[in-house]
Amino acid sequence: MQKEMIFEKIDQAVKILIEKDIDMWITFVRETGNMKDPMMEMLVGTNATWQSAFIITKNGDTNAIIGSLEFENMKAIGTFKKIHPYLKSIKEKFLEVITPYNPKKIAINFSRNSSLADGLTYGLYLELLNHFAETDYTSRLISSEDIVAALRGRKSQSEINITKEAIKETLLIFDDVSKFLKPGKSEKEVAAFVHELVDKKGFGLAWEKEYCPSIFTGPNTAGAHSGPTDRKIDYGHVINMDFGIKYKGYCSDLQRTWYVLRPHETKTPDEVQKGFNVIVESISRAANELKPGKEGWKIDEVARNYIQVSGYDEYPHGLGHQVGRSAHDGGALLGPKWERYGNLPFIPIEESNIFTIEPRLTINNYGIATIEEMVVVTKDGIEWLSERQKEIYLIR
Amino acid sequence: MQKEMIFEKIDQAVKILIEKDIDMWITFVRETGNMKDPMMEMLVGTNATWQSAFIITKNGDTNAIIGSLEFENMKAIGTFKKIHPYLKSIKEKFLEVITPYNPKKIAINFSRNSSLADGLTYGLYLELLNHFAETDYTSRLISSEDIVAALRGRKSQSEINITKEAIKETLLIFDDVSKFLKPGKSEKEVAAFVHELVDKKGFGLAWEKEYCPSIFTGPNTAGAHSGPTDRKIDYGHVINMDFGIKYKGYCSDLQRTWYVLRPHETKTPDEVQKGFNVIVESISRAANELKPGKEGWKIDEVARNYIQVSGYDEYPHGLGHQVGRSAHDGGALLGPKWERYGNLPFIPIEESNIFTIEPRLTINNYGIATIEEMVVVTKDGIEWLSERQKEIYLIR
Repeated sequence: MQKEMIFEKIDQAVKILIEKDIDMWITFVRETGNMKDPMMEMLVGTNATWQSAFIITKNGDTNAIIGSLEFENMKAIGTFKKIHPYLKSIKEKFLEVITPYNPKKIAINFSRNSSLADGLTYGLYLELLNHFAETDYTSRLISSEDIVAALRGRKSQSEINITKEAIKETLLIFDDVSKFLKPGKSEKEVAAFVHELVDKKGFGLAWEKEYCPSIFTGPNTAGAHSGPTDRKIDYGHVINMDFGIKYKGYCSDLQRTWYVLRPHETKTPDEVQKGFNVIVESISRAANELKPGKEGWKIDEVARNYIQVSGYDEYPHGLGHQVGRSAHDGGALLGPKWERYGNLPFIPIEESNIFTIEPRLTINNYGIATIEEMVVVTKDGIEWLSERQKEIYLIR
Repeated sequence: MQKEMIFEKIDQAVKILIEKDIDMWITFVRETGNMKDPMMEMLVGTNATWQSAFIITKNGDTNAIIGSLEFENMKAIGTFKKIHPYLKSIKEKFLEVITPYNPKKIAINFSRNSSLADGLTYGLYLELLNHFAETDYTSRLISSEDIVAALRGRKSQSEINITKEAIKETLLIFDDVSKFLKPGKSEKEVAAFVHELVDKKGFGLAWEKEYCPSIFTGPNTAGAHSGPTDRKIDYGHVINMDFGIKYKGYCSDLQRTWYVLRPHETKTPDEVQKGFNVIVESISRAANELKPGKEGWKIDEVARNYIQVSGYDEYPHGLGHQVGRSAHDGGALLGPKWERYGNLPFIPIEESNIFTIEPRLTINNYGIATIEEMVVVTKDGIEWLSERQKEIYLIR
């Protein structure tokens, strides 16, 4: 399965090289056990210890130049057709492999905007310049960010199918959490319950265990990107959980909101209901605008404005990101035009991109309302991948 | 525990900055969930999503500049004293924090030689240049490789103690494997047995599960850096296993060799015994030469030469590497003067470095003999951290 998925993505990469008229794409790495270029998993499917180059060309060739001790492993993995082992220095073999192609444009993995297209470290970049010093390849180097954005962003049908399964499994876990939440339980207990379920089902986590799930109960929590604490669920709390699994190599990323009814209450207080409804409506409005060709900042703006005119502070992050092998994936982002997002909010949205939509707002004295749905962009709109949360989940 | 270890390493980093007269060390990262600078785990102890700078200064200050959404998490982690959250762009806050120090030398994580000091990606390096464009900090940037080599290489007593525990636990697993090995069992079955033990004991693996353990039975195997296959153990096989655990954040990395007696045999065939003895003796000879101040290539040469004059091919890798939070750790390497190792074989060995010693040789028609021991460098020599394998383990 893994190998077939890699072949599918390599074929797609070749098509993208043709489309963008780039002759060669080099993923140049070393010691990936210490730090791993994010493209390795999608294109290669194994690790590399010594300086190694994984080269895909416009004519469909795949060349791996690797340390000789890893030759047998690379053969066994079987994702690259031509394997060139070297013993003492990569340089000669590297030039020998590249020269016959005489590439005019060579993409390498660096990008000021996209961390997923920025797997080449600066020291290794200097090594590359050194290997190429006696050639003029250095003047032909370009960023792979357009390739990476397209390759990671345009999901194949099998990638979409796996993501759907991942989401379905994740929502089942959310259902179990709904039954588990009770006043007196701490955030840490909820997280432990989730980890136990995930282990039992044999899934991975979509991001670091320390805050996957993130769970926040009541007012005055960190609200996001923070691990569970000893804070206990209490009556009158709004609870939210951010959680995703890694399933057959692909991630889900979802959020849901609960309210803990006080003993005398039969429904959510008006201010909680209002905040929740604003979140739901902001998602509907953003989703209505989401289609191929649009720039992400425009979608973000729809939700952000709606939340602000409804009387809440704007959320301190983007509305949504792409999801794939990484929880934060792809190029185009549904984010505001803040410098920290670089050019990502300006990259046109494409068909088959998978996005989260995840606005948030604070309901004073209660907690944080946030819903995160997942959608796939279709020819002229979106398809919901997650069954939407439209009612706040009540804990009695 | 984790937090105390980080404080210990930050204190040590400050001492190293003073020793090397470097004013400031910046670990500059983003989206560490996708790819993580290897220094993050040792110095920070959590992830960062948006561009973030973790700054340690010669006067002992620790400043973290991070996305505002991660402020509460950073406070809870508690490893950096001053936390500076930003919302839209890191640049202003970054300059505001650095300026009062007026640093003459600013170390950043790039290195042509050491992957552990090369966590800064090229795209992010360009971002850094851009943030500093109106200052002259760009001319003050230097590589952190000397700092990283010292900090990761000079183990504290608590790091040595944890490593000793990790080794002890690992050797217990090797003992269990000795009882498990039988003709007819496949490499994959052995690996599954090891994974089950590791899970049951709650340990992590020292490197990627796909080849941790690596296990090779009989002649004509890949021999190293390759995953287990369906190849079955048979009489007359030399078997070797390369395996390590991650225990309280620190790695072990050990290898052992077995021989499967044929039905009529009561002891190992002479050629197997000879090959095994050469490995044991090469380790003793290398260990005798290992002391502070020496360069690693000289230690490698001792074992390499002994193996060659004994009639075997040289091993296609270095004799040994440092071990720490990563299986391949530190700067100085016991490796040959091959270009692929850069300057690492020339970095002087220091007291409290933890090294593997792992020569290998092929015993024709039988398999690969390899032992990997772990040692810590003392004031004038070494202390064995692993109980040495001096006899080949026999499977009857």
